[in-house]
Amino acid sequence: MTTDTDIRTSDPTGLHRVLDERTVLPQAAQRLDTRRELWSDEVRVRVERLNLDAASFRQLERVHTHDGVTDGDAVRAEVLDIVATRGKMQNPETGSGGMLVGTVEEVGPESPLGLSVGDRVATLVSLTLTPLVIEDGLARWDGRSEQVPCDGYAVLFGRSIAAVIPDDLDPALSLSVMDVCGAPALTARVVEEHVARGARPTVAVIGGAGKSGSLSLAAARAAGAERTIGVVPHQGEHDLLTAAGLADRVAVADARDPVALRDAVTAAGGPADVTVVCVDVPGCEGGAILATADGGTVVFFSMATSFSAAALGAEGLAADVRMLVGNGYVPGHAAYAMELLRSDAGVRALFERRL
Amino acid sequence: MTTDTDIRTSDPTGLHRVLDERTVLPQAAQRLDTRRELWSDEVRVRVERLNLDAASFRQLERVHTHDGVTDGDAVRAEVLDIVATRGKMQNPETGSGGMLVGTVEEVGPESPLGLSVGDRVATLVSLTLTPLVIEDGLARWDGRSEQVPCDGYAVLFGRSIAAVIPDDLDPALSLSVMDVCGAPALTARVVEEHVARGARPTVAVIGGAGKSGSLSLAAARAAGAERTIGVVPHQGEHDLLTAAGLADRVAVADARDPVALRDAVTAAGGPADVTVVCVDVPGCEGGAILATADGGTVVFFSMATSFSAAALGAEGLAADVRMLVGNGYVPGHAAYAMELLRSDAGVRALFERRL
Repeated sequence: MTTDTDIRTSDPTGLHRVLDERTVLPQAAQRLDTRRELWSDEVRVRVERLNLDAASFRQLERVHTHDGVTDGDAVRAEVLDIVATRGKMQNPETGSGGMLVGTVEEVGPESPLGLSVGDRVATLVSLTLTPLVIEDGLARWDGRSEQVPCDGYAVLFGRSIAAVIPDDLDPALSLSVMDVCGAPALTARVVEEHVARGARPTVAVIGGAGKSGSLSLAAARAAGAERTIGVVPHQGEHDLLTAAGLADRVAVADARDPVALRDAVTAAGGPADVTVVCVDVPGCEGGAILATADGGTVVFFSMATSFSAAALGAEGLAADVRMLVGNGYVPGHAAYAMELLRSDAGVRALFERRL
Repeated sequence: MTTDTDIRTSDPTGLHRVLDERTVLPQAAQRLDTRRELWSDEVRVRVERLNLDAASFRQLERVHTHDGVTDGDAVRAEVLDIVATRGKMQNPETGSGGMLVGTVEEVGPESPLGLSVGDRVATLVSLTLTPLVIEDGLARWDGRSEQVPCDGYAVLFGRSIAAVIPDDLDPALSLSVMDVCGAPALTARVVEEHVARGARPTVAVIGGAGKSGSLSLAAARAAGAERTIGVVPHQGEHDLLTAAGLADRVAVADARDPVALRDAVTAAGGPADVTVVCVDVPGCEGGAILATADGGTVVFFSMATSFSAAALGAEGLAADVRMLVGNGYVPGHAAYAMELLRSDAGVRALFERRL
């Protein structure tokens, strides 16, 4: 640490590293300060791999594909350019980033994160707000995969989140779970609230065979749901989810068709007291609202959710449902998701199938 | 009623009047069936006035203004064309509608709405899902105001909502209150939940001098808030809100500046346990999250809210806050808002000032 870093007081949100003229949070910033020296509440991580957000990687790939051939060198050059220009990996088109894996290199004396030098960690906050310097020119990456081997460093703020990667599991498996760990934790909390009010809820998870969906089903059951319903788009996922044994009932429906979704959930024992939306396609708001009982809760985890479609949709249907924006952060969420993976063979089978 | 109407079974959401090929809810439909004859759970209203949504009217006005002169006839012609084509008033550009005032003309024998022929009502569901026929060519409207005198009819479904307009108040005042009545009802419910958990909350209302904001402040106090904080954008609104006496503290801050908003709320006695966002400008998500205590609740009533900014923002800040999509429907919301208007001289003064 140099005295230079003391010019600005650090802020747990990372404001002190925003270089924009306007006061914005790091995620909204055009450019971050990537100096190596730490403020006293920061942590520096030696990066070993970046996991680019799927939407971001697909966009880069599309732009640099001509006549069916992807120019991996051009993809790599663009990622290097973004990170050098912005001081963080945030695709200007999609606005999204990804996460990273690395080893803790230095811990500021006032860091509240509880990390130690040498810990192997995954960041659970987005790359879109994480100061990042790439030092190897991404020489080991061919530009053709979301998984980017990388040498360099990144900085975590006082309010950043990072989880230590367990020794007993395949790191790829751990990362895959951590990527969606907000969903099961919030689902469990909502189910527990219903249980505390004296009624074990019926829980429907739309997209129940996916990563966040399967964890949410396991969480709902563990938290005391009376009945769990997994909704999937086709017979293949129906068979997969049935074999995993995560839901009491599995229903096939197109979640974009509000009437079909309502009818499928009703036939499977609904309406749901808690509906969890885990499918990343637009237009599922109306069906999720219709599938939910009066006084129930809809939790939207899909980034394709439209705020106005949810708000106006519920009003237009005179639906007395509580609608939650799926906050990806709940204290203890990573540990809780890992526990579900370890204790539930069905969840583990679905995740291992994807590796 | 004719036997013709029995061809399709009615659905409380109005699906039976959707003419699109795909199954969509009335709000998402391109075109609604506007036949005069009622299904058994419907109500027909003789329309006296349409209140166009402000965003929709401004868009129409802009398109038909040349060299600073608005062509009111062209605005009128476009509204007539939209309603004739779609069977409802839904601006194709903004997606929004408005509400209407009229008198109940016929009540289907199975209508659950509790209305009687002759009741003067305002619809509390959007015009974007309400079958509408205009019969007077809008001859009494000059195309220059959101208030549209109109003769024609509209149809309410089993799940539509309409409120009887009180006799003792200026109808314009009643409509102005009903337009935003979801906000105080949901605010009261959230405050009551916090009180039931054993702690009277500090409540911050961003945009506290506005219509939904002032009602939400009054609701928070009535529901048992420990302290209410109104945040406004400039000194003029500060003085207005202070004079109305609706908030224990009034703070001036730009809600789009997350740090300024956090600091203003903190200085006024925050962080807030409940933050209610009532300002219709984009970019307030981060500040609202930062102004809220861990374990607290943010209620987003602004239609300018970005779902992903809220979800990723909270995650990026490791903020353990519950975020609610402001559902415009809560049972009894219109009556509750009218009661606040009647009992709180400060609310009434702010609303009457706008007439």
